[in-house]
Amino acid sequence: MPTIVVDVMPKAELLDPQGKATSGALDRLGHGKFHDVRIGKRFELSVDGPVTDEVLAEARQVADEILSNSVIEDVVAITVDGEAE
Amino acid sequence: MPTIVVDVMPKAELLDPQGKATSGALDRLGHGKFHDVRIGKRFELSVDGPVTDEVLAEARQVADEILSNSVIEDVVAITVDGEAE
Repeated sequence: MPTIVVDVMPKAELLDPQGKATSGALDRLGHGKFHDVRIGKRFELSVDGPVTDEVLAEARQVADEILSNSVIEDVVAITVDGEAE
Repeated sequence: MPTIVVDVMPKAELLDPQGKATSGALDRLGHGKFHDVRIGKRFELSVDGPVTDEVLAEARQVADEILSNSVIEDVVAITVDGEAE
């Protein structure tokens, strides 16, 4: 069953306190080479049948209107993962 | 500056109440073709300098030990995104 993966991240101009806290923790734990951590969401949607252009267009609409809040978040990627989960 | 993307999902055998609620909402809103929604996290870590095998190994360690809770989550992907953010 194909899976559509929608990646949503907080907008670049917004503070991401969760990410900031994680950056601080990594630094304290000796992993300072990683910085500017940002934390977003990854949605996996199972789809019945093949992922046509139409289904993908509907997925994009769902991603923009339902899965993300366009005031504070960007949909950064919509990909199709063909393998059964 | 390269970015390492770490994708973390709730384990398949666990209930994902947030995902279940989203599935229900999609169904009610006429997007019933998408089901079994699962919601995980996407971490973006900025790295100074090139992403060597060593850096990637450290990223995997960070992903397993710090960014995810191995009792309830799986690290499903670690990818490198070369473009500047």
